[in-house]
Amino acid sequence: MTPNPTAHNASVLSSQALLDHWQGHRKLTRRVIEAFPEDKLFHFTIGSMRPFSEMVKEFLKMTEPIAAGVATGKWASFADFDSVTTKAELLRLWDDATEKLNAIWPTIPAHRFAEVDKAFGQWEGSGISIILYGIDNEIHHRGQAYVYLRALGIEPPPFWVR
Amino acid sequence: MTPNPTAHNASVLSSQALLDHWQGHRKLTRRVIEAFPEDKLFHFTIGSMRPFSEMVKEFLKMTEPIAAGVATGKWASFADFDSVTTKAELLRLWDDATEKLNAIWPTIPAHRFAEVDKAFGQWEGSGISIILYGIDNEIHHRGQAYVYLRALGIEPPPFWVR
Repeated sequence: MTPNPTAHNASVLSSQALLDHWQGHRKLTRRVIEAFPEDKLFHFTIGSMRPFSEMVKEFLKMTEPIAAGVATGKWASFADFDSVTTKAELLRLWDDATEKLNAIWPTIPAHRFAEVDKAFGQWEGSGISIILYGIDNEIHHRGQAYVYLRALGIEPPPFWVR
Repeated sequence: MTPNPTAHNASVLSSQALLDHWQGHRKLTRRVIEAFPEDKLFHFTIGSMRPFSEMVKEFLKMTEPIAAGVATGKWASFADFDSVTTKAELLRLWDDATEKLNAIWPTIPAHRFAEVDKAFGQWEGSGISIILYGIDNEIHHRGQAYVYLRALGIEPPPFWVR
């Protein structure tokens, strides 16, 4: 194998492919929400961790605000989802965020993916690093929900289907 | 906000940034391995899942072979790590894979990230989708290890430090 000295600058991912990747993960997360019985979604925990509903609210607090923040440089304060107590409501908010993410995404100026900003006035990083953090955070906590489901004797949806 | 019709093709991630992203996640996974008491690493489970050591062996079976496969189009059969029974051995293999990933990465021809291949003769996708699958799989199962640690009363390393 011969090293290719130009490859480190090579583009490996386009804006559209990243959106598809994120929405693919979000589809899987939606199936994981659906797999929980409603009471377990809001109350089941292991080792003093949060119930999965609280993690899902965290995803919702990040998804649309991150896309909007990278698009505009304006970082909305986190919405408050404390009053959400049903699976149907959570899924409705999820689908709403799906549409908003699709609508905001094409408005992100190309240079904003590399530009460094301070997300929510607190976390400094490039637009792409902030977006990847949001996706990774969702994968991380959704993985924890798989353990909750297994502990409950429920087969989780396959990880590789998006 | 005005849609920018060119943005969907915009590059959002370079080859070097993706390697840094992966290695950052791998550093965190190494800290999670270290956080486990040795017997728990190899034996503790919840809900009939695998112990974390088995998930780590899966990461090792994917990391170097994925990089090499995307680089060359040759997909090595999975190595067998069945004989590995100590944390020290697992960490040594981890560090070895870190160096190999760094060495292989610059040899990936730029066009291979977009080119569709059949990983390990089985999973069809672009080079980038195969690499992202490997990273996402690591985040997913490492998140499960966080539940194991919490259930054991052990504070896991912070997710946001890479």
